[in-house]
Amino acid sequence: MPLIRLTAPDHLPHALVQQLAHAVHQAMVTTCDVPVADRFVLLNRVPEGHWMADPHFGGVVRSRHACLAEILFLQGRTADQKRRLFLAAAHGASAAGLRPDDLMVALTENTAMDWSLGGGAAYADVAH
Amino acid sequence: MPLIRLTAPDHLPHALVQQLAHAVHQAMVTTCDVPVADRFVLLNRVPEGHWMADPHFGGVVRSRHACLAEILFLQGRTADQKRRLFLAAAHGASAAGLRPDDLMVALTENTAMDWSLGGGAAYADVAH
Amino acid sequence: MPLIRLTAPDHLPHALVQQLAHAVHQAMVTTCDVPVADRFVLLNRVPEGHWMADPHFGGVVRSRHACLAEILFLQGRTADQKRRLFLAAAHGASAAGLRPDDLMVALTENTAMDWSLGGGAAYADVAH
Repeated sequence: MPLIRLTAPDHLPHALVQQLAHAVHQAMVTTCDVPVADRFVLLNRVPEGHWMADPHFGGVVRSRHACLAEILFLQGRTADQKRRLFLAAAHGASAAGLRPDDLMVALTENTAMDWSLGGGAAYADVAH
Repeated sequence: MPLIRLTAPDHLPHALVQQLAHAVHQAMVTTCDVPVADRFVLLNRVPEGHWMADPHFGGVVRSRHACLAEILFLQGRTADQKRRLFLAAAHGASAAGLRPDDLMVALTENTAMDWSLGGGAAYADVAH
Repeated sequence: MPLIRLTAPDHLPHALVQQLAHAVHQAMVTTCDVPVADRFVLLNRVPEGHWMADPHFGGVVRSRHACLAEILFLQGRTADQKRRLFLAAAHGASAAGLRPDDLMVALTENTAMDWSLGGGAAYADVAH
């Protein structure tokens, strides 16, 4: 149950955004021990002017294609896993046709007791 | 000031989604000591293909009606309160006409110092 | 990389919402040591009935113009910085033409290791 919320400008082709979402998920699979089937993605397509990202902050060159992946997942990943996650996501973005500088990622953490995947059960009680 | 962000597919009837939002809020009232008037709900209606939830992960059977309730609230609730919250929300979803497996819940926590309910005042300073 | 997600009703003029976004960012600059160029804002314009905020909870008088600023930023700000942030944002809202009671703010925190601003690099590794 990582939850990926992917914000992408309206003008980007749907196929590219789908591929980008897939790439971010795959990056979590390969670097953070997320099962392949554990895939929950929300797309947030935004009109021109609704996503204002500074074009240069952080030594990055952002274009009007800049996207944002917000991930909510379980605490416990190491700094090195996060490093590899960011790198893998950037590679995947590139393969999807987006410049790596146009993918920003923000992580937020919670615990297994903070999820119910359905049926009213706490994930902490059903996970093994 | 729990904040409920309820994501629901566009094709679900507005009345059902309203009832679901009400059910999630009521679940917080009955299990987490949230005052009835402390109600802040954001609806996020999404077009087909913008909310991709694996149909089976976590031993759940999700349909295309699957919804997601994200709740931001104060830390301090016990594991048992969260358990009862998930269960009460699932019951409420069912009463609203949604299969309990079609309600996923994700909690994120912050503190009383992280909210201003208005007028520039910190909630921590006005709460009693 | 504070990320500001600003929810505003559809009926509010775009110019007012832009000014409000600017005001919230400026409040972070003046109270929380956020660089001016460190500006990342997502606008979430919502149709009537999609943002349900209790009109009075917390001793506040909210109108149908009520907006919500969610901020994700680095942990470490003091209670006093947050107090001044809320106050500065309310003043800025007022200057933008919004009643201070119509601006609600919610903060969530993460760490420098939780951001990649682009290019696959962890912010913790490039910040100085």
